[in-house]
Amino acid sequence: MLDEDLGRLWQVAETMADAARAAILPYFRGVALETRSKLDGGFDPVTVADRAAEQAMRAVLARERPQDAILGEEFGATPGTSGLTWVLDPIDGTRGFISGTPTWGVLIALTGAEGPVLGLIDQPHIGERFQGGPGRALVSGPHGERPLKTRATTDLDAAILFTTFPEVGTPAERAAFDRVSGAVQLTRYGMDCYAYALVAAGQIDLVIEAGLNAYDIQAPIAVIEAAGGLVTDWQGGKAHDGGQVLAAANPRIHARALALLQGS
Amino acid sequence: MLDEDLGRLWQVAETMADAARAAILPYFRGVALETRSKLDGGFDPVTVADRAAEQAMRAVLARERPQDAILGEEFGATPGTSGLTWVLDPIDGTRGFISGTPTWGVLIALTGAEGPVLGLIDQPHIGERFQGGPGRALVSGPHGERPLKTRATTDLDAAILFTTFPEVGTPAERAAFDRVSGAVQLTRYGMDCYAYALVAAGQIDLVIEAGLNAYDIQAPIAVIEAAGGLVTDWQGGKAHDGGQVLAAANPRIHARALALLQGS
Repeated sequence: MLDEDLGRLWQVAETMADAARAAILPYFRGVALETRSKLDGGFDPVTVADRAAEQAMRAVLARERPQDAILGEEFGATPGTSGLTWVLDPIDGTRGFISGTPTWGVLIALTGAEGPVLGLIDQPHIGERFQGGPGRALVSGPHGERPLKTRATTDLDAAILFTTFPEVGTPAERAAFDRVSGAVQLTRYGMDCYAYALVAAGQIDLVIEAGLNAYDIQAPIAVIEAAGGLVTDWQGGKAHDGGQVLAAANPRIHARALALLQGS
Repeated sequence: MLDEDLGRLWQVAETMADAARAAILPYFRGVALETRSKLDGGFDPVTVADRAAEQAMRAVLARERPQDAILGEEFGATPGTSGLTWVLDPIDGTRGFISGTPTWGVLIALTGAEGPVLGLIDQPHIGERFQGGPGRALVSGPHGERPLKTRATTDLDAAILFTTFPEVGTPAERAAFDRVSGAVQLTRYGMDCYAYALVAAGQIDLVIEAGLNAYDIQAPIAVIEAAGGLVTDWQGGKAHDGGQVLAAANPRIHARALALLQGS
């Protein structure tokens, strides 16, 4: 079924991304940003834009793919009958969003029984769209369209590592991260989902994060795998349920980072 | 003299920024990026783009403003006779540049005896240009033109703080930074000169850095001051020679951050 519908599924995904852009951009860097805290004591703002974007994407699915299930960051799970699930994070990087940085994004994945099938990382402010799945690995935007292909780096001392916060997860998780960070050429912070796009685009080698949700990582998995990379948890297993994530440009650099995460 | 030439000086600055964009963009996310290390043992790549952009800006000045001095990150100091100096950082954020992030920028300042007179923070990849000086405080780009105006935040627990690296300067500098970071609502990393633009744009409240050069900070000073903010060193004095820098959205939040930096 997926084969015959693939072109149509890409169209639906792009229509959803267009709808999310239109819903979000009026609020980005706006003066009337409404935020509220989701976590007691934490700082995890959800903006009006976040909710509006998921509603806009769900409206596209209600019209075009009512048979598919939905898992959205804002409105949770909606059952379907097709065996396919759209996994949506309308604004990945809400802290970056409220700070005005351009590296938050809209994440859209289509997932089957085996994991993500196709994924899209959209950056509305810059206008860049990273897409990966069967027969497609490309970034399009104001500077044209380019194929996505991961780097061939195999030595950690030539690798560039990204994570969103220097405070990575628990103390043990932080220690594991620091082992890799101490071995690479360069560690950088703060890029949210954009870091995964940079792995796919062949700009950086590794992203290591912890405490992720499924909707944070399914689109990056599809985009990075289509570009030649791989994404696992810190035990080398599947990462599409979230948690600890290691995204790598290729299997050799992945193996070296994984060994350090595991303490050897 | 500055009064009568002001419109012309803005034209020259914009022509320089256009020239730098044209020189840099072919190399951004390019596959043949030539880098070399400037510091023994350090990782401070200078790209072909960095040198080409400064040369392009110097060519504009040789034609349009041969009477002015130049201080450039790549090619050093060139004397002039006008009492004005163009202070240039062709690529601020070279680590971000080689990583493919969109938050590096071109910094152009025009400086007189009292410090920066006008400044421009340009982001070639996004196409955004932040400008500040007499009679001008605006950002222009793909989403149109907007005035720059800093935030009115006065309490640290409602403030957003940025710095480029979590490893801020010396251990003592890091401890001072951590005092402020521990008091604010949100600390974010990794935006290079873009963080200063976000202060001017009213998105964030504070940027704290150490070990800066004059060419890193003069353009941000002009842009932030024109938007209503202020930039000093960690003693509250002038920051235009670089070193320790505190950029703030307004005098009250500045005073609160400064007190913590000084240990009280």
